Amino acid sequence: MPSHAPRIGFIGLGIMGKPMARNLLAAGYELTVHSRSHGPVEELAGEGAAVAASPAAVASVSDVVITMLPDSPDVEQVVLGDDGLASGGGEGLLHVDMSSIDPTATRRIAAALAERGIAMLDAPVSGGERGAIDATLSIMVGGPEVEFRRAEPIFQHLGKTIVHVGEAGAGQVTKACNQLVVGANIEAVAEALALARQSGVDQVAVRQVLLGGFAASRVLEAHGMRMIEGQFQPGFRVRLHAKDARIVQSLAAETGAVTPAFNVVADQLDQLVRTGRGDLDHSALYTLVSQEAAAS
Amino acid sequence: MPSHAPRIGFIGLGIMGKPMARNLLAAGYELTVHSRSHGPVEELAGEGAAVAASPAAVASVSDVVITMLPDSPDVEQVVLGDDGLASGGGEGLLHVDMSSIDPTATRRIAAALAERGIAMLDAPVSGGERGAIDATLSIMVGGPEVEFRRAEPIFQHLGKTIVHVGEAGAGQVTKACNQLVVGANIEAVAEALALARQSGVDQVAVRQVLLGGFAASRVLEAHGMRMIEGQFQPGFRVRLHAKDARIVQSLAAETGAVTPAFNVVADQLDQLVRTGRGDLDHSALYTLVSQEAAAS
Repeated sequence: MPSHAPRIGFIGLGIMGKPMARNLLAAGYELTVHSRSHGPVEELAGEGAAVAASPAAVASVSDVVITMLPDSPDVEQVVLGDDGLASGGGEGLLHVDMSSIDPTATRRIAAALAERGIAMLDAPVSGGERGAIDATLSIMVGGPEVEFRRAEPIFQHLGKTIVHVGEAGAGQVTKACNQLVVGANIEAVAEALALARQSGVDQVAVRQVLLGGFAASRVLEAHGMRMIEGQFQPGFRVRLHAKDARIVQSLAAETGAVTPAFNVVADQLDQLVRTGRGDLDHSALYTLVSQEAAAS
Repeated sequence: MPSHAPRIGFIGLGIMGKPMARNLLAAGYELTVHSRSHGPVEELAGEGAAVAASPAAVASVSDVVITMLPDSPDVEQVVLGDDGLASGGGEGLLHVDMSSIDPTATRRIAAALAERGIAMLDAPVSGGERGAIDATLSIMVGGPEVEFRRAEPIFQHLGKTIVHVGEAGAGQVTKACNQLVVGANIEAVAEALALARQSGVDQVAVRQVLLGGFAASRVLEAHGMRMIEGQFQPGFRVRLHAKDARIVQSLAAETGAVTPAFNVVADQLDQLVRTGRGDLDHSALYTLVSQEAAAS
């Protein structure tokens, strides 16, 4: 790592954040971490990370601060709240939010940071825990080109497909599109595998042969196998996908877009949450269309 | 080709059938063809195929007869109608129906053929015209294991993924599952790309970055590009996918399966047919959710 490499702060060491922070540490970056949960903080401290007591403290010793948090209010609190990174960081700081949140919140935060001379990129990811661990995430980046160029060497230690998709919020719009497609693809595979089973046809064979044609997808490969095995431990929680579905639907409402098939998927996700299945993996959409699962 | 190789008949030389028949000819099989349209018949005759005047005549000089036809009534007519292959073929003939038709019709035809000592496999495919030309189709085969073994060397000249999925009709059930997934995946990509455009985000960048994560699919790759380019020449016609959607829905009704998201897709396909877009490629689902396309 060259001596002019940026000092990185990392806030939010959950399922995704922890392996991402670890990859940056392994790449040789000087890293300062902060998270609500003590376990991951101590783990990374043991691997060489510095620890800071607040987002402001992280910002005061960093050139770039990455956040990886559950939802829009979490990001707003960590950035703009008491002891938030905005109060600790000065002119020239870059905030890279890799959480998946509402693009409207992103634009609001970016504007508030700009008033303080702090630049922001929205850079949500797809690829799940596996992608975070293996540094093969897909990273969809919104914000100024010059800041994208500044962050790109960092992204290269986290992901494989890194695309600058547009201005502030464009990364989050792209992530909403991603969650629309992933959710609808999971529902499609669930409906197809349930139909196969109801028709007395072997699901393993169906998955295998469909993977050879136009039905092939990463969802059929990964989530289809989960459905066949009845293995719904997360992975990516229904509750979080339901949150993303609300982002898709409010974005559609704001922009006049229509999403008739995805609206059904959003309803199915809400139904899982209402019936106590919000902490299962989102491939549990299968349990709503599968008769054997419904009966159990 | 060994001298004991089966003599093959091929009925139905459309977009899919013609390149498939050509691949069998190129593999060295003795091939007799029949089709309603003269052009493809003459083309294949020029490449060494024999020509027969009726399905019965094809059957009388073949050990295995392949059919590749648009819909259930076409297959019933060609097999069981006047001068149908059942009337020309005797004990020991194998009929391989590679059309995509209703599994109920398949079981009815298989039973009628069995009474005459003629075996049948249902072996619909996925992979489109490109897959037919390149012999990379995915082939989903229903019927007796012994007949599958007999046909397998032939399938290897037509496809890449060849799976025996179950008894008579199981191939068609699998194809219905395939069309469910493909249709829903196309609708999902259409809704996502329309949402991106309405939100002012570049569709090319969205497609590229989504291909790197869990949203990746053959549909996003192939049909997503068609939507971005506004190129809806078939390919696979809306009209045929709407036919397949009816097969999915009657299979679901018969077996008690539920397909809530796909039902929306089936409605969208019907709406395209009703509004004069039945002969476009099925990626034209995009035109129902895209405002620029709707306005034009």
